[in-house]
Amino acid sequence: ADIEAGKAKAAVCAACHGVAGKASVPVYPHLAGQQEAYLLTQLKAFKDGSRKEPLMVPFMAPLSEADMENLAAYYASLK
Amino acid sequence: ADIEAGKAKAAVCAACHGVAGKASVPVYPHLAGQQEAYLLTQLKAFKDGSRKEPLMVPFMAPLSEADMENLAAYYASLK
Repeated sequence: ADIEAGKAKAAVCAACHGVAGKASVPVYPHLAGQQEAYLLTQLKAFKDGSRKEPLMVPFMAPLSEADMENLAAYYASLK
Repeated sequence: ADIEAGKAKAAVCAACHGVAGKASVPVYPHLAGQQEAYLLTQLKAFKDGSRKEPLMVPFMAPLSEADMENLAAYYASLK
């Protein structure tokens, strides 16, 4: 996975999950330092609908498998 | 919410999420320092089935609303 590519893709995520993966809204999760495998599993679950989260749906459509891997690697790399 | 009561209830959670909320298994999420409101929302979603996670189901049945509030407060309090 490519952390720098993930960082570039993460710009839109920052609106809710914070610029460094620290969410500013209490109901949204921090992503910084989260487990890479967990993040990837959840991204895939949002995309395939097995984890139903309507807020995430519009953000998943444009993401490829590689994008999701890169995003998971990026957020896992943060402290 | 009662952080100490949450800590007591968290003993069983530690098997997967770690003794201090740091998961030892890559596919399980860290809980330490996660947002309290997010943790509570997810616990309720596991309990009511709106977030489908079969692994979590058996652990949710014995938890009261207060238990879930205390668990969320406990994990949010960790670093």
